[in-house]
Amino acid sequence: MKLLLINPNTTASMTATIAAAARAAAGAGVELRAVQPSFGPASIECHVDEVVGAAGVAEQVRANAGWAPDAVVVACFGDPGVDAARELTDAPVLGIAEAAFHAASFLATSFSVVTTLTRTCTTAERLLQRSGLAALCRGVHGTDIPVLDLEREPQATFARIEAAAREALARDGSGALVLGCAGMAPLCARLSDRLGVPVVDGVAAAVRFAEALHGLGLRTSRRGDYAPPPPKPWAGWASSWGG
Amino acid sequence: MKLLLINPNTTASMTATIAAAARAAAGAGVELRAVQPSFGPASIECHVDEVVGAAGVAEQVRANAGWAPDAVVVACFGDPGVDAARELTDAPVLGIAEAAFHAASFLATSFSVVTTLTRTCTTAERLLQRSGLAALCRGVHGTDIPVLDLEREPQATFARIEAAAREALARDGSGALVLGCAGMAPLCARLSDRLGVPVVDGVAAAVRFAEALHGLGLRTSRRGDYAPPPPKPWAGWASSWGG
Amino acid sequence: MKLLLINPNTTASMTATIAAAARAAAGAGVELRAVQPSFGPASIECHVDEVVGAAGVAEQVRANAGWAPDAVVVACFGDPGVDAARELTDAPVLGIAEAAFHAASFLATSFSVVTTLTRTCTTAERLLQRSGLAALCRGVHGTDIPVLDLEREPQATFARIEAAAREALARDGSGALVLGCAGMAPLCARLSDRLGVPVVDGVAAAVRFAEALHGLGLRTSRRGDYAPPPPKPWAGWASSWGG
Amino acid sequence: MKLLLINPNTTASMTATIAAAARAAAGAGVELRAVQPSFGPASIECHVDEVVGAAGVAEQVRANAGWAPDAVVVACFGDPGVDAARELTDAPVLGIAEAAFHAASFLATSFSVVTTLTRTCTTAERLLQRSGLAALCRGVHGTDIPVLDLEREPQATFARIEAAAREALARDGSGALVLGCAGMAPLCARLSDRLGVPVVDGVAAAVRFAEALHGLGLRTSRRGDYAPPPPKPWAGWASSWGG
Amino acid sequence: MKLLLINPNTTASMTATIAAAARAAAGAGVELRAVQPSFGPASIECHVDEVVGAAGVAEQVRANAGWAPDAVVVACFGDPGVDAARELTDAPVLGIAEAAFHAASFLATSFSVVTTLTRTCTTAERLLQRSGLAALCRGVHGTDIPVLDLEREPQATFARIEAAAREALARDGSGALVLGCAGMAPLCARLSDRLGVPVVDGVAAAVRFAEALHGLGLRTSRRGDYAPPPPKPWAGWASSWGG
Amino acid sequence: MKLLLINPNTTASMTATIAAAARAAAGAGVELRAVQPSFGPASIECHVDEVVGAAGVAEQVRANAGWAPDAVVVACFGDPGVDAARELTDAPVLGIAEAAFHAASFLATSFSVVTTLTRTCTTAERLLQRSGLAALCRGVHGTDIPVLDLEREPQATFARIEAAAREALARDGSGALVLGCAGMAPLCARLSDRLGVPVVDGVAAAVRFAEALHGLGLRTSRRGDYAPPPPKPWAGWASSWGG
Repeated sequence: MKLLLINPNTTASMTATIAAAARAAAGAGVELRAVQPSFGPASIECHVDEVVGAAGVAEQVRANAGWAPDAVVVACFGDPGVDAARELTDAPVLGIAEAAFHAASFLATSFSVVTTLTRTCTTAERLLQRSGLAALCRGVHGTDIPVLDLEREPQATFARIEAAAREALARDGSGALVLGCAGMAPLCARLSDRLGVPVVDGVAAAVRFAEALHGLGLRTSRRGDYAPPPPKPWAGWASSWGG
Repeated sequence: MKLLLINPNTTASMTATIAAAARAAAGAGVELRAVQPSFGPASIECHVDEVVGAAGVAEQVRANAGWAPDAVVVACFGDPGVDAARELTDAPVLGIAEAAFHAASFLATSFSVVTTLTRTCTTAERLLQRSGLAALCRGVHGTDIPVLDLEREPQATFARIEAAAREALARDGSGALVLGCAGMAPLCARLSDRLGVPVVDGVAAAVRFAEALHGLGLRTSRRGDYAPPPPKPWAGWASSWGG
Repeated sequence: MKLLLINPNTTASMTATIAAAARAAAGAGVELRAVQPSFGPASIECHVDEVVGAAGVAEQVRANAGWAPDAVVVACFGDPGVDAARELTDAPVLGIAEAAFHAASFLATSFSVVTTLTRTCTTAERLLQRSGLAALCRGVHGTDIPVLDLEREPQATFARIEAAAREALARDGSGALVLGCAGMAPLCARLSDRLGVPVVDGVAAAVRFAEALHGLGLRTSRRGDYAPPPPKPWAGWASSWGG
Repeated sequence: MKLLLINPNTTASMTATIAAAARAAAGAGVELRAVQPSFGPASIECHVDEVVGAAGVAEQVRANAGWAPDAVVVACFGDPGVDAARELTDAPVLGIAEAAFHAASFLATSFSVVTTLTRTCTTAERLLQRSGLAALCRGVHGTDIPVLDLEREPQATFARIEAAAREALARDGSGALVLGCAGMAPLCARLSDRLGVPVVDGVAAAVRFAEALHGLGLRTSRRGDYAPPPPKPWAGWASSWGG
Repeated sequence: MKLLLINPNTTASMTATIAAAARAAAGAGVELRAVQPSFGPASIECHVDEVVGAAGVAEQVRANAGWAPDAVVVACFGDPGVDAARELTDAPVLGIAEAAFHAASFLATSFSVVTTLTRTCTTAERLLQRSGLAALCRGVHGTDIPVLDLEREPQATFARIEAAAREALARDGSGALVLGCAGMAPLCARLSDRLGVPVVDGVAAAVRFAEALHGLGLRTSRRGDYAPPPPKPWAGWASSWGG
Repeated sequence: MKLLLINPNTTASMTATIAAAARAAAGAGVELRAVQPSFGPASIECHVDEVVGAAGVAEQVRANAGWAPDAVVVACFGDPGVDAARELTDAPVLGIAEAAFHAASFLATSFSVVTTLTRTCTTAERLLQRSGLAALCRGVHGTDIPVLDLEREPQATFARIEAAAREALARDGSGALVLGCAGMAPLCARLSDRLGVPVVDGVAAAVRFAEALHGLGLRTSRRGDYAPPPPKPWAGWASSWGG
């Protein structure tokens, strides 16, 4: 199957890191194409980053439509542009946050999230509320580690994330941990070994769930708000989107 | 006071219509600047339209920062880009959907919403859930009138909206009506006369609430997720956003 | 416009203090009439105080009907009698708690409340639940300062409230603060300066929102549970209410 | 045990009717005192009625404190003044709406409510929300029968209530019915026979639950918001309440 | 009246202890039959214990149908098998957890629960969510005291439970305490004396509420999901359940 | 991988039907073992059926522990015994209802459920509430088709289910359909073709999600309420469970 992996930010090295994590997680027979938008911020850490990143996700789904992916994964923990992507393709589309939340809900009756900047916790909490899984999440914990530091200082950030995870699990009394950033994917196995609870990386979870949905022959609904966008004029840099 | 009114779509005639409604609603001493993004769809009727419209709102807040507005109103019923706008200015920022919901909640213990395409109801319902006011809204009703038809066929669409409003009020047993599109602003007074319940147009409500907040000396919080965006490199058409 | 300000308790000096705060907040052209019930407790700090205060609010709306106010503000943080007042007039009626909650929701994605006696937190929490805004409030914090001490010992109480506010903001991680008593109105500007976050005083917010609704031409719904009370015999001190 | 039954309205014949229903429901050894406020409306059918009725309940708990009741029942479906009553006595206090909701929740996984004026449904829905039992109630149905017609036209109103109950049960798919007015108590047994589902009258339920709590030796908490009211000056007709 | 008390575990001495508590709580004229399943675990402390305990409750309702009980009480804090029991009899059936939650809701606006193993808190939290009373419970606190230690080491466990209760009440700011295990019934009066708040034992509460429902002539609904089970073949040790 | 499929009822032909559907859905390399309890009802259609079915699931997890399954699927739409199964193994355990709900949530913003007996809707609604996905489900619709008729009269039941699905989708305005019984698995592809929306069969979804979790190396949490059951004496037919 052909899997389109979209990193919504514009840092190519991070796209490569995420793609490597996705390939490591994927089953046999998955052909992966990893892309990033032609525009936008180097990382997604606030609402402004997110709205442009969401537009970038839509751009990449359109740009890769000719490749006819069997599934799409959006690899940023705020799941930017996932709804828009679902309008643009009937292939299943998965955000890594929702994939991680759902995976965790199969493994424990409660989970905790450890993420990057504290200011992004609001986005995660809204996703939890929208997905309905807020009741299972006992806490979203910011570490105030900038996203790009995950690549730049892997040793130091691992230690901080492990410490935050231990504190979160103790305070929340949760049974599982969700990693709140695509950039944390490489840390997952090591953290799981050290913490003694299931640790869910959304990149891997989204890839495997995408394979599962594809294997089931399930496609995104074309009825309701995921129907294809109504045609209309578009302007400016997006003027080609209209036809 | 200086009020920046952003129409998130790129239809100039609709910007003019909304601006006229805003001016009619505004108190004495309001200087209004009405703008629209340099890119994006002619109307906002689906998730793809919305993510690009949200990026367009951010663009316009940035582009008009030099004018130093005292308040910002985002004039599309899905409130696209409102969170992003709040990061980019400490002036109060109001979306017309939230303004309308809050106004209605002061006037009746329940309200109904009549909007354009049925597929947009999901967006309104999510805004209601996020704002907490879902419990007061007894129904969001689509009419399947395209946004731009509101301008093109005012007579025919008025009749359809009035009929939908009567049915909604009867079925829901609500005490007030919220108009679910900026393009419906010109219909508000006439609808209110005919229906016998308060009819809330979000454009007018947002303008007056923006004046209220400005009069109170209240500004958007700079603490938490509305703090200014962290600086970072940006790429492509948005490369100037980075510095 | 004519604004009726009702202090639900019977302490005349507090009525004067609140009226001064309201006048300071009001826009040009607001004619303010500040009243208090002819009966009831000197302050509203428990359920018994509140039910009699609510009846007092209804008394004053009736007593001032001849003045034909354009809007009514109920200046006690429990919003006693607001629903009853809405039955008795089609002018917009605003409670200061709901006005403050709604104002805060425009400025930050979360807020905290600092109030007087801890036992009154239940009332604030119920108002938050009823208004739907409970999801945005991260904490209602009692200081155990009696309402009337706010006037009697302004210096000492300011220090205690500031300390409680700092602790609340730190613990809750909120972006804005709501003052939980009409008697705290005079402290608002100074607290805001010192705390660095928006501080919302419900008296000022209610006055400005009342002006906004009046400016919009919006009136309380006459349909549903805010329709005028059905006529019937009344007994005792309220016997004149029946006709 | 001594049971104080308070009818919050001022119609003496209705007090007598409710008292008869309460006596019929009560176990052996219950000494019943049925009272009504010295002031207020002839029936409770809107928010104004309710706030004055709530003050009347507080008046009667105070007035009968010397009798030292072992439990108090507030016999109006909006449960006016129940919180205030709990501050004024450590005897258990039960409202008939909450008693009925709780009883129904023991008998079926869902229930429906049939009440008097449609405008009062808001009050019942808020009580359901506050008590937490909203999730079990599939519908609150108004019949637009005025409260006092229940006594004046028993035959005609019985037929209308039975018809409304049948329609409510069919539409809601509920397993039990709650009667939404103290004045419906005399209809309970006959309705139950005809409908084939448990029909709960709140007056009887509150009396029996009051006996149960008394039998258990449980008293209203004196800690938190049900602690006795703080002493303070009172004015007007309530000036004696201060000391 | 005839009351069937089912201890869902298979420890006969615990059945006797609970029966003694139930007898002490019951009113005059209650004939009590205390039983336990013929199979299952010695105590209910995890999900496996609970599913088998639930089947055991169903077994005992069937086995004692010939005795024609007027009410049934299930005496384990997870309320195992209560729904199943309600299908098997039209006598009222009460679980001790729900009985305790409802009793506490009449006495305070919030309560705390102190229970045995921390892992059982999930079950209590789910019951609270299902019953709707989660909003009133400010905390479910595990003590990690095994159920059977309550009998074996009464002195030591009393001290630990009292300490946990004091801490829970202080942290939660609750007005009442609920005991989270049938085996804690004998501690109730002493704890209440020492803590100064109402302490609710579910065994006693369920017995008295069962009496109340019986006195009201209310029976479990036969409509909806509590209708008698449809007849069908059964296999294995339960083969006699089919006819 | 080794997948243990447990049919909680005791109808061997239904176990075979479900196993065939599971095999058809499974990816390459899945070794399937399909089992059923040694005791219990021929179908699961009420609370009594369910509690015994849940005990049966626990029995089969224990009985097949020696086979060391890599994942477990519980193939009854009420997900009986899933929590208990998770205590008994650290392999991932999936119920078909939760698997179907989660799959549908990836494909549409709302879904509807069509199930067998109307009385079982309560169980589905509680699972939706517990999983958090209730907000996405717009309706659970009973057809009153007995479970075993799905095998006995495939043609007639297909027509009834299709009709119910069409009505549900139209009334609810949902974008996807969930089949509410393991016995409906063989109908899934044909229904999907005819309805034009994604149709989710929980058996297939659970199998593929189980493969996904296994592929991710994720196991059930051993911390919290899914830790292994504490050892203790067991009695009766379950006496061997104690050691």
